[in-house]
Amino acid sequence: MTPRLPLSDIVRDLPPSVPFIGPETLERGSGRPLQLRIGANESVFGVSPVAAAAMRAAVGDLWMYCDSEAHELMTALSTHHGVSVRQLHVGAGIDEILGDLVRTFANPRDRIVTSLGSYPTFNYHVTGYGATLVQVPYVDDRAHLAGLIRAAHDAGARLVYLANPDNPMGTWHGAADVLGLLAELPADCMLILDEAYADFAPSAAIPPLDHADHRLIRTRTFSKAHGMAGARIGYAIGHDCVVAALNKVRNQFGVNRIAQVGARASLGDAAFIEQVVRQVEEGRREYARLATELGLGYVDSATNFLNFDLGSGDRARTVLAGLLERDVFVRMPGKPPGDRCIRVTVGTPPQRAAFSASLRDTLGVLPA
Amino acid sequence: MTPRLPLSDIVRDLPPSVPFIGPETLERGSGRPLQLRIGANESVFGVSPVAAAAMRAAVGDLWMYCDSEAHELMTALSTHHGVSVRQLHVGAGIDEILGDLVRTFANPRDRIVTSLGSYPTFNYHVTGYGATLVQVPYVDDRAHLAGLIRAAHDAGARLVYLANPDNPMGTWHGAADVLGLLAELPADCMLILDEAYADFAPSAAIPPLDHADHRLIRTRTFSKAHGMAGARIGYAIGHDCVVAALNKVRNQFGVNRIAQVGARASLGDAAFIEQVVRQVEEGRREYARLATELGLGYVDSATNFLNFDLGSGDRARTVLAGLLERDVFVRMPGKPPGDRCIRVTVGTPPQRAAFSASLRDTLGVLPA
Repeated sequence: MTPRLPLSDIVRDLPPSVPFIGPETLERGSGRPLQLRIGANESVFGVSPVAAAAMRAAVGDLWMYCDSEAHELMTALSTHHGVSVRQLHVGAGIDEILGDLVRTFANPRDRIVTSLGSYPTFNYHVTGYGATLVQVPYVDDRAHLAGLIRAAHDAGARLVYLANPDNPMGTWHGAADVLGLLAELPADCMLILDEAYADFAPSAAIPPLDHADHRLIRTRTFSKAHGMAGARIGYAIGHDCVVAALNKVRNQFGVNRIAQVGARASLGDAAFIEQVVRQVEEGRREYARLATELGLGYVDSATNFLNFDLGSGDRARTVLAGLLERDVFVRMPGKPPGDRCIRVTVGTPPQRAAFSASLRDTLGVLPA
Repeated sequence: MTPRLPLSDIVRDLPPSVPFIGPETLERGSGRPLQLRIGANESVFGVSPVAAAAMRAAVGDLWMYCDSEAHELMTALSTHHGVSVRQLHVGAGIDEILGDLVRTFANPRDRIVTSLGSYPTFNYHVTGYGATLVQVPYVDDRAHLAGLIRAAHDAGARLVYLANPDNPMGTWHGAADVLGLLAELPADCMLILDEAYADFAPSAAIPPLDHADHRLIRTRTFSKAHGMAGARIGYAIGHDCVVAALNKVRNQFGVNRIAQVGARASLGDAAFIEQVVRQVEEGRREYARLATELGLGYVDSATNFLNFDLGSGDRARTVLAGLLERDVFVRMPGKPPGDRCIRVTVGTPPQRAAFSASLRDTLGVLPA
């Protein structure tokens, strides 16, 4: 018999939920190691050697708690982006920051607007704090800005979430359109602009960092171009008063010391990040050629992944399963219209060749 | 002018608060590096060399997200403690776990019982989730078990927090008394038994790990004897249904990959932990002799720190300030009766000698 726990009202009513099934979980499920791990938009190009060396050296300092103010990293970010330290908030990855943002701005039952099929971990936090999701379908595989604006007004939303470039679609809007969205939102509605993939995006997609609107909160990460997903470190850029509000609830000594050291070092190795971005661009082009060669569509992307268009949800699911049988880990966008696609992270050249072979093999055994 | 943000009701009403001022923050305040960092109960004896090597090797894997299920560490903990994996919950330090526990069990305005002056970060989370603290004064520098029981009944508490051994006092209760507390709590009240310092405690203070009561949740950490405070990794041991509830809200991919690898390796290096514990015992005895020599009292401790009894809050504050002027970082318990003490983490032998000299120097310039 399950004992009755004195759960909070919100947690009592929450269904068990997992935003993502991790690759290690898949491996335990199949009993076999994955041969290709290109499903979680991790950077197969790894971490900067400068950052790696700094992190190995920092292992000796691990007996000390981290600097709760992440001062050295904050100072480096301040210089890097030309924003004040008071506009910066460092957290244990964007995931943690998104949770803290929902907690900071939403009461239970408040409405929060996002795109249908967008980042599941954001939805996990919204539901987890008892707020209500309003989900606006993509149009042409892109976040529907006019729809988000309308939904925010109709719902009286506290928060709107926009990933730009988008995950899982990879598409993007220009900076002017993003700022247009912000301008049209209700005066008491915050915009979380998740720029996890900003490093891969054309500069025209990124609003100026000094754009002054206290409703704009941008999130950035070291998990993508910086190759530090396992380190759990990201940051937000926003108005002083937003940072002050986050400081009231954040886990104050929560960001791993090695991650802080590594992030700062990686930020200083611009040449490394540039070559990662170039390799990713080359890989995206190669994936696009592969899709065309196989008679598949693809969705233009400004990220480190590309969606291969299989034409229908059924076919995409079959291909996803076929690839997994071949120990190839990719993912598919969860909701229409994206669920006609499989989302493939850019691999190294040998990984891309192996993926190409697996995909051909999988498609070969499919009904035409 | 500060813009009006659409803050949640709870966050809007929260005062800014910092559970601890970190040593790096003190250094930035004084403009000078600390000469002795023995205030945060970090382990100056460092991390196991086996764990350090494993962590340096894991830097190369940091491009991958962590295993969200921390499977390898969970398996090792399961073997180590003889409990099922389903009874284990790994988080980014006890701090994160305490926040998740408050969130899981408390509605806003619910009452939560703790000892007056006990772990500030627990209080930070209670307040941060809008719950109400009921604080029971220490008696004889120990958590007042009968008082906690009475307060839990009177307040209709959802949660009771007990650190055993206690922080900041260092005192402890025997296992039978802890289980007696649990037995006397209301049927719908959970007990968080924070055993961060368990590695340093006499075995008689630690209830058996297979004690069957779904209301009992124990927290453990790699921050103390394992010397991994900067890694941010801890765990909880509890009933399956408690773990399932935490899984509904936890930051699923939140525990640094290197921390997971290091924790597992450290758990395997029992000899290292044993010698840390022996060194800490020796250090505590040395501190006790120093206190006696200087005509001060001290509070018996089962942790990696000792409270020197200065006799009054004023004197303790003066000594704390005097030590800080000498770039010696120690802390003092925040509330009576502990605020007559300064709490000093066990240092290495040279650090203890340096502390002894600084303390003598500080006391020498004090009024008698």
